[in-house]
Amino acid sequence: MTQQPHNFELFSFWRSSATYRVRVGLNLKGLQPAEHYVNLDAGEQRSEAFLKINPLGAVPALINLGAEQSSVPLTQSLAILEFLEDTYPTPAMLPQDGLGRARVRSIAAMLAVDTHPLITPRVKKYLTTVGNFDEEAWRAWQINWFGTGLRALEQRLSNETETGTFCHGDMPTMADICLASIIVVMRTFKIEIVDIPTVQRIMANCEQIDAFAMADPGRQLGAPTG
Amino acid sequence: MTQQPHNFELFSFWRSSATYRVRVGLNLKGLQPAEHYVNLDAGEQRSEAFLKINPLGAVPALINLGAEQSSVPLTQSLAILEFLEDTYPTPAMLPQDGLGRARVRSIAAMLAVDTHPLITPRVKKYLTTVGNFDEEAWRAWQINWFGTGLRALEQRLSNETETGTFCHGDMPTMADICLASIIVVMRTFKIEIVDIPTVQRIMANCEQIDAFAMADPGRQLGAPTG
Repeated sequence: MTQQPHNFELFSFWRSSATYRVRVGLNLKGLQPAEHYVNLDAGEQRSEAFLKINPLGAVPALINLGAEQSSVPLTQSLAILEFLEDTYPTPAMLPQDGLGRARVRSIAAMLAVDTHPLITPRVKKYLTTVGNFDEEAWRAWQINWFGTGLRALEQRLSNETETGTFCHGDMPTMADICLASIIVVMRTFKIEIVDIPTVQRIMANCEQIDAFAMADPGRQLGAPTG
Repeated sequence: MTQQPHNFELFSFWRSSATYRVRVGLNLKGLQPAEHYVNLDAGEQRSEAFLKINPLGAVPALINLGAEQSSVPLTQSLAILEFLEDTYPTPAMLPQDGLGRARVRSIAAMLAVDTHPLITPRVKKYLTTVGNFDEEAWRAWQINWFGTGLRALEQRLSNETETGTFCHGDMPTMADICLASIIVVMRTFKIEIVDIPTVQRIMANCEQIDAFAMADPGRQLGAPTG
């Protein structure tokens, strides 16, 4: 992995699962962004300064300094990963064959579409205020959706012959990035889902790769120490 | 739009927003699947017969009869749209330039990732049983997330210069497919979000296109009549 000069500015938060995905993608492509920390716990995503960067108040936002239209930030982790793949094809984060690409994107969606949106801070805010959820009910909600998503994933990975060292064959893809993005955020919440041996095996393989290890939430600016 | 022979089998439900997306994509590409109706209201997605097709019990599932590995169905609407785009590039559902592709995929994700997963039947089931939501609380939840997503979309579409007849320029893309997929499902719930003129204008333009009109939930097998 060779580091290239700062062509990108990444607006990020240490614990954000979606930011993690983009960090791993940038790392795999050997791209080193200048990183700007947006403290979601302090509401900085709604500050006047950040809303000038991204009017929707969401991280990650990636500014492509090399582009003509550099004022519009790239948003949405899956769209950013696809952009990186389109722009820097090597090393690939998608297989070359159509059915393989469809399988990787489908697995990625099981995690980033079916699972993660249900446990975001804005959902927590609604459920714990309007919805009268106490902390215990919120935790049960988190465990329900992490468990639903990861058990469905385990069923696929353990039954489908395309599964290898990673979710699809022996090179990491967007599917692994999304898998790891769910596991790392579960760890920050101290939630464990049992009986998912294939998922755990693949996660351990991901963590052997620098691009994943360097993106770990605990190693980012703003993470709790000790 | 020329209709090609049945190369695909689509497992569908009339009201499903994700199935709608795949229907529009197939229509735009001039592909005519054999359609199999899975009655989600009657729990058919959990029947032994359907679980043999898709062990995860979800629609849409698309079987590519032309493929060697035809036993594994394609799942997840965004992954299926990308597969159709990879396999049948014309007419395109994504722009050709990298930043344009990133913008279209980002808008698609605001709807299919940030918005739709929150109002699915499985979320309703959890909230109305474990979460003690009554019908009024569920409806307020739906309105909150449809409104949040569509107001954020309106802000983008009305401020970004790339917006044209459709979300991105003057040809329909995956962004329009996802936009329309949210509006049509809102209509089945008789929910209206006000003050989104750009969204409404683009929806009206989508409905002028056969590929969208033919995919309307009300025109599918199983839809209520009258």
